[in-house]
Amino acid sequence: MKVIVIGGVAAGPKAASKIIRNNPEAEVTIIEKGEFLSYAGCGLPYYISGVVKEQKELMSTPIGIVRDSVFFQNVKNVNVLNHTEAVAIDRKNKTVKIKRANETEEELPYDKLVLATGASPVKPQLPGMTLKNIFTLHEVEDAEGIKNMLSENRVIDAVIIGGGLIGVEMAEALAERGCRVSIVEMLDQILPMFDSEIAALMEKRFEEKGIKILTGTKVLCFDGGKEVHKVMTEREPLTADMVIMSVGVRPNVSLAVSCGLETGKTGAMKVNPQMQTSDPNIYAAGDCTETVNLITNKPAFIPRGATANKHGRVAANDICGIKDGFRGVLGSTICKIFDFTAAKTGLSEREARLAGFDPVICLSPAPDRAHFMPEAKLLYLKLVANRKTRKLLGAQAAGSGVCDKRIDTAATAISAGMTIDDMANLDLCHAPPYAPAMDNMIVAANILRNKLDGVMIGIKPKGAKKKVEKKGSSVLLLDVRSPAEVAENKIEPSMNIPLGKLRSEIEKLDVFKDWEIIVLCKISLRGYEAALILKSKGFENVKVMDGGILMWPYAGRRKIQGGEK
Amino acid sequence: MKVIVIGGVAAGPKAASKIIRNNPEAEVTIIEKGEFLSYAGCGLPYYISGVVKEQKELMSTPIGIVRDSVFFQNVKNVNVLNHTEAVAIDRKNKTVKIKRANETEEELPYDKLVLATGASPVKPQLPGMTLKNIFTLHEVEDAEGIKNMLSENRVIDAVIIGGGLIGVEMAEALAERGCRVSIVEMLDQILPMFDSEIAALMEKRFEEKGIKILTGTKVLCFDGGKEVHKVMTEREPLTADMVIMSVGVRPNVSLAVSCGLETGKTGAMKVNPQMQTSDPNIYAAGDCTETVNLITNKPAFIPRGATANKHGRVAANDICGIKDGFRGVLGSTICKIFDFTAAKTGLSEREARLAGFDPVICLSPAPDRAHFMPEAKLLYLKLVANRKTRKLLGAQAAGSGVCDKRIDTAATAISAGMTIDDMANLDLCHAPPYAPAMDNMIVAANILRNKLDGVMIGIKPKGAKKKVEKKGSSVLLLDVRSPAEVAENKIEPSMNIPLGKLRSEIEKLDVFKDWEIIVLCKISLRGYEAALILKSKGFENVKVMDGGILMWPYAGRRKIQGGEK
Repeated sequence: MKVIVIGGVAAGPKAASKIIRNNPEAEVTIIEKGEFLSYAGCGLPYYISGVVKEQKELMSTPIGIVRDSVFFQNVKNVNVLNHTEAVAIDRKNKTVKIKRANETEEELPYDKLVLATGASPVKPQLPGMTLKNIFTLHEVEDAEGIKNMLSENRVIDAVIIGGGLIGVEMAEALAERGCRVSIVEMLDQILPMFDSEIAALMEKRFEEKGIKILTGTKVLCFDGGKEVHKVMTEREPLTADMVIMSVGVRPNVSLAVSCGLETGKTGAMKVNPQMQTSDPNIYAAGDCTETVNLITNKPAFIPRGATANKHGRVAANDICGIKDGFRGVLGSTICKIFDFTAAKTGLSEREARLAGFDPVICLSPAPDRAHFMPEAKLLYLKLVANRKTRKLLGAQAAGSGVCDKRIDTAATAISAGMTIDDMANLDLCHAPPYAPAMDNMIVAANILRNKLDGVMIGIKPKGAKKKVEKKGSSVLLLDVRSPAEVAENKIEPSMNIPLGKLRSEIEKLDVFKDWEIIVLCKISLRGYEAALILKSKGFENVKVMDGGILMWPYAGRRKIQGGEK
Repeated sequence: MKVIVIGGVAAGPKAASKIIRNNPEAEVTIIEKGEFLSYAGCGLPYYISGVVKEQKELMSTPIGIVRDSVFFQNVKNVNVLNHTEAVAIDRKNKTVKIKRANETEEELPYDKLVLATGASPVKPQLPGMTLKNIFTLHEVEDAEGIKNMLSENRVIDAVIIGGGLIGVEMAEALAERGCRVSIVEMLDQILPMFDSEIAALMEKRFEEKGIKILTGTKVLCFDGGKEVHKVMTEREPLTADMVIMSVGVRPNVSLAVSCGLETGKTGAMKVNPQMQTSDPNIYAAGDCTETVNLITNKPAFIPRGATANKHGRVAANDICGIKDGFRGVLGSTICKIFDFTAAKTGLSEREARLAGFDPVICLSPAPDRAHFMPEAKLLYLKLVANRKTRKLLGAQAAGSGVCDKRIDTAATAISAGMTIDDMANLDLCHAPPYAPAMDNMIVAANILRNKLDGVMIGIKPKGAKKKVEKKGSSVLLLDVRSPAEVAENKIEPSMNIPLGKLRSEIEKLDVFKDWEIIVLCKISLRGYEAALILKSKGFENVKVMDGGILMWPYAGRRKIQGGEK
């Protein structure tokens, strides 16, 4: 059996190696345009920041062996043609036409073909795009170009266009290298896969680190001589010695399209669960491939290294006649922004609405482990559940606390179709250095249960602000924190009765009996208690501000940001 | 409705508060023997070590409010009788007889009663047990006694009897305070909920930190004048200024038993999923209560703070007529040993066998995030699956890498009844600072799939050693690491052919064609590749040593321990 694999980064080498493991008699050839195989593209920002010292580390196995063509030949028995391009596929005769570095062409026959052609950065056709020092970050060569500039002995103004994952990772990397960094984002927020209140936390963190964030801002063009000097935006011109274009990636499908293979709605290769394209002898895997969102069952284009590896395995198994299937993705995402993390799985609230769900949400900021441990850090957790089925739809976590643990737990729960009641019963591990006795995830699930059971009615800070500021509205913001806490950051207008005094001073609220009362505290745990007290005293229109003052994105928030518990 | 709650630590206050939240009209009284309510018992070792500075922090809410009787009255509207003991229950007349600190007695009527009487440390009746400075660790007062001794200006010899969770946490705490520490354990290993190869990693770490471990050793008696000076064991006498007895806890059920309530097989209170005892008006919750192991469906006594909280909520809901139920536990466990963590959920391999399962296991040591990140740490992962159903039965993690994330993910997967195929498809989050592209959990699941699919046959280091050392056996240990790696720690007898040369030097193995060949490398990934190469070359009896040299618990291992990737 002759197998040709086009693309040598993630899905390709995985598929190739697995085919040989399944069937040592197979003849497998990888065709790769570049020099390198199996390099860790996700490590490039850390190579640029200097956290990863040598390029070689990104191409090595954990043992330190560089995955070059010799390695693939000797260890995996996979033939590698690097510096070689696949230029055409002849499906009828089952051949791939290749072009070598020296421009010679050749036809290679295949029984099965795997397309692992990846994705490429989108390069919008803006005036000035061809100026020097406008980079994308996709290949090792891009990283080397950026690093060369950084080695110059001067402070560099770097403008990052696009506040997605690569954009924010690059912002951190360049700031760590001493650049003055701005991020320009067309949408109203960075990290568009997150809901705005979570993205706002990250924007705040960037700003605290001196990084300028321009959201809702289009780039018009680039100015300069040979090199870029200015990024002209709708709002203001930005000085730029370097520009990083990170406005997304597009699947590399031209080879496939030109031989008549089908692409999906997302523009990526359409495949069945066995990773077969519309031609059963041709598979597609990795970043060039469309996949299914496990929650919406709709096609999705969410390129990820982990997914590419799974694709590669499934394609290899199917090629070798071993039953397997790729089920789909949740779009799990994580990125580091200095000491902060943002992580997500499943649907955001906005995505849930767009997909036609009736979502119920909770915002729960709390210490990430026993609050009395000095290393406890603040973790903001947002859960989104399906009101009808009580199933978890998505989870977002942010902050200096441990986010990945909670999001991986949520990803597992969503995959299993768990309800929030199931989640509240999870037996997660806890000891003071690792988690509170009631893990943040369980607390959040219980808040959702309270909301779904009608015991608690939440309102988001944004909605609360709007209501209370509306002229002539009969809405009271009741802050039940201690006077000392309120002195640190008061919301205006609001009234303060500390929770401990609420029962004894309830008559202070007599005049508000017919008002809507929105209760808040630091995280809205005391707020919840207060709302229950008010209800027991006959107040009928009582809401709790989701996430408390910690989720209040307006004035006064700065003081309570950061490493605070 | 009058509710009496006996016990004010975890399940009791939780039940009391939740009842009032559910039903503000309820009259709820907590009866507590001691001074304190809702204190974090699990924080005591960290109070002793000095990580937690003040006792008060263990009794406070995350906001810093001490949960005393005034707090419960004002905030929760719960009446608290502390320094008060419940001495008898009259089920017929539905009253509890209480005794106050001043010895006065009183009868309190109840409609519903919640027993949250907790558990107490086992104190074996050994000669000398009444000597001074023999402690258990259960209450704040115990911690104060230990701290008083530590404040003396001398090096203290501390002997810890029992290597369970509290024992190992205390060993760390006392070592951090400068004590010379020994642990004496009757069983063959410390941390008996873990399989021996995982416990061995922790024993090694203790020894590296200068802590003496005596396993398989019974304590005979204590010697001393007024104070303890020596612990006499079967093996050797140990100098002791201080002894910590941590040989387990027993549920406090005497009050319940004397009024005729049923206990279960484990000796703890028997309850239904609504936490009702054999008297439907009496509930039991928390450490005094038996629960169900979700995997075996058998009764279990696994006291945990998180479980107590869940029990309290369920009991409160049922008392208030709200549908709820406690489902059971997985025995999730975590503890810190200096820079190491040991964490577990579900069944160990031994427990799985005892429960009648046919377990298949994998041992997977690997970096806990992208291996090129400088902060990557080694994580040892062991999964146990049911050979028949392919469902995950348990997971154990240890090492300086991030363990809790993987174990919480596993706990969620087990709760959902996931197979290892489901797990291999999980969309977990990854970026270099947080996880490898193929998370350790997914790699481990894939190893299990390979084993279950018959593609890989594993053998544990212990079994490999036995086989190869047997005189006249035709068993070859084939080490496929590089010569440089082998030079660092060679297993004798073994043969070395680096993986990259195995195909070209295969004839070296011609004489072993009929032998059993056990292949190994550092972590057994190259070992697996080598085994496949051998099989493709006609070798029929090939096994892979589970976990590679990193799981080899014999000579030469020290060199590769610790922060090594």
